[in-house]
Amino acid sequence: MSTSTLSGDSIDENAFAIEDVSGAIEDYFFEGAEKLLEIWFDKKQAGATSLRNIPYSELVAMLDIAHCHILHSKSNECMDSYVLSESSMFVSDFRIVLKTCGTTRLLHTLRRILHLAKIYCNMDNVISVFYSRKNFMHPERQPYPHSSFETEVDYLEEHFTGGSAYCIGPQRQDCWFLYTMVTPRAAFTFPEHTLEILMNGLPDDVLNVFSPSVSKDGNDCRMKSAINTVLPPGIIVHEELFSPCGYSLNGLIPHSDHYITIHVTPEPNFSYVSFETNQNALNLNEQMLKVLEIFRPNKFLLTIFTNELSNEGKEVQKNLWDLKICGCRRTNLQFLELPTETLVYAQFERMENMK
Amino acid sequence: MSTSTLSGDSIDENAFAIEDVSGAIEDYFFEGAEKLLEIWFDKKQAGATSLRNIPYSELVAMLDIAHCHILHSKSNECMDSYVLSESSMFVSDFRIVLKTCGTTRLLHTLRRILHLAKIYCNMDNVISVFYSRKNFMHPERQPYPHSSFETEVDYLEEHFTGGSAYCIGPQRQDCWFLYTMVTPRAAFTFPEHTLEILMNGLPDDVLNVFSPSVSKDGNDCRMKSAINTVLPPGIIVHEELFSPCGYSLNGLIPHSDHYITIHVTPEPNFSYVSFETNQNALNLNEQMLKVLEIFRPNKFLLTIFTNELSNEGKEVQKNLWDLKICGCRRTNLQFLELPTETLVYAQFERMENMK
Repeated sequence: MSTSTLSGDSIDENAFAIEDVSGAIEDYFFEGAEKLLEIWFDKKQAGATSLRNIPYSELVAMLDIAHCHILHSKSNECMDSYVLSESSMFVSDFRIVLKTCGTTRLLHTLRRILHLAKIYCNMDNVISVFYSRKNFMHPERQPYPHSSFETEVDYLEEHFTGGSAYCIGPQRQDCWFLYTMVTPRAAFTFPEHTLEILMNGLPDDVLNVFSPSVSKDGNDCRMKSAINTVLPPGIIVHEELFSPCGYSLNGLIPHSDHYITIHVTPEPNFSYVSFETNQNALNLNEQMLKVLEIFRPNKFLLTIFTNELSNEGKEVQKNLWDLKICGCRRTNLQFLELPTETLVYAQFERMENMK
Repeated sequence: MSTSTLSGDSIDENAFAIEDVSGAIEDYFFEGAEKLLEIWFDKKQAGATSLRNIPYSELVAMLDIAHCHILHSKSNECMDSYVLSESSMFVSDFRIVLKTCGTTRLLHTLRRILHLAKIYCNMDNVISVFYSRKNFMHPERQPYPHSSFETEVDYLEEHFTGGSAYCIGPQRQDCWFLYTMVTPRAAFTFPEHTLEILMNGLPDDVLNVFSPSVSKDGNDCRMKSAINTVLPPGIIVHEELFSPCGYSLNGLIPHSDHYITIHVTPEPNFSYVSFETNQNALNLNEQMLKVLEIFRPNKFLLTIFTNELSNEGKEVQKNLWDLKICGCRRTNLQFLELPTETLVYAQFERMENMK
């Protein structure tokens, strides 16, 4: 999404940095690719309550450290969902998912998140951490420690021990970075999977929809883009159409901590869309293919985490192995076994692109 | 292998560097993990002859650049095999495999290899390149560009375009680096696979064999260690027992460009053994398990490259997926799809190690 009119210091700094280089307005750039942090706390810790006990004002102050803020929120019995000035946050009893784009300082919130979990929820036992992101188009425009995965891992290792850092895909082309720390206590007792689709280079007719000159609000974007067709019935949606352009959607599946989150950066020079879900209300494979049909990206990557208990996750991983997408060539396929989960990663590129 | 009495400048420099730090003899260290370069030339290039036409004196001069030298060689109809002061080289008509350990400067030979192929063999069309190595125990003791994979890839990219660089396994623990450049001309028309086993932390009773105080020569090492039991009948072997310790073996399978190469660095503080083969004379899976039985490493990693045409390669890859090794835990499993081949990579660690 583009948030030039909505966000705080980070965008101002970015604007200055860009002006320093050339002063030209054409240099405007927004890094759509999100930093994604997921932390799981130990529900069995004596006295542990819920991350949802953290007061709203504390969440606001925590996000301020990252240089982003809450636009609106929705809740169900299991989870609080926040649409942010830059991307999204989901807080359930023992898990927090924080996803921020642009030049936000996501990892700077780590110390505060751990502190808040301790003082408001009696939880200081982190059982697993996942930090991931696609390679940035302009890493040199990112604030410390986000300008390189190396420094990000250094930063994470100040807070966690026993983690592992991976680069999936070719290091100097499109690739995806993952840091994970998983303790033996993290053994899953319920099915769990996460699908991410990270897309670049979208056609103009797809992108046009996500601006106030074409759509009157978020709801209008959702209908015109056909995003509504990939959402399960009954989903609780809140969404934002940004000015001058950009779109974010959070969806909560009723009675669960399952979510769908979509973010669109529609500027043609650096267009980017992300789709992420852990839902099992719809067929995950069909949903994935439908998302790709809607956005028609030139290049995209798919990541699917699943544990042994999730049949849906295992099924989509298996499908990915043999997945043919019309007009596209698979440029990378990787499999990674982690302590409690497996990951299948695939990159595709449209063939007309590859001359 | 340890080559303190055999090699040239590189070891002297290493010795100085170590003395600079502390002056203590206990600081002696030898980096067993090899740099491995494999280059395939286009046999269909007009006028192409054979890499085996490169004169011996030119090979000597080329290896001098890497700071190693030829100890002895053997040949069959398809290939020349060289045991080096640091590891091995195999030259067949259109492929050169150069594997060097210690503080050798392998990549410095690149320009010379390409030059020799051009002037002696009419070949300047490289169709594929593989450069790989395990992470070094002491990268800071390596000469440029080998002290980091980043600088190695920079160096490779001065010679080749269109390559991809991967880190397989966790970046900050035991892992394996791979650079590949594969052109569309590299499509395989025959079965091809390569198995590597890289082992660390071997038991003393295994290591003791590889020193002149216990074994009288290379042949004696081979028999006492039971390495002879993993070699196919009829194999043409040449080998070296180093002083004060260390062992290298090259084996040529008759009537083919298939080889086996084994290198042992037996110092207990930094023990390391590598096994590499592209053979199909013996069952590859059984051979792999037998090698692990002989060396009983505390930690090891397996890499298996195969193309679609190699049933043996695909079979071993498939076995690796479900491989259980008694007393060991698999700490990493990765799969990577490359343009003409697939790679399965696995790391194991002995459980008594993992307290």
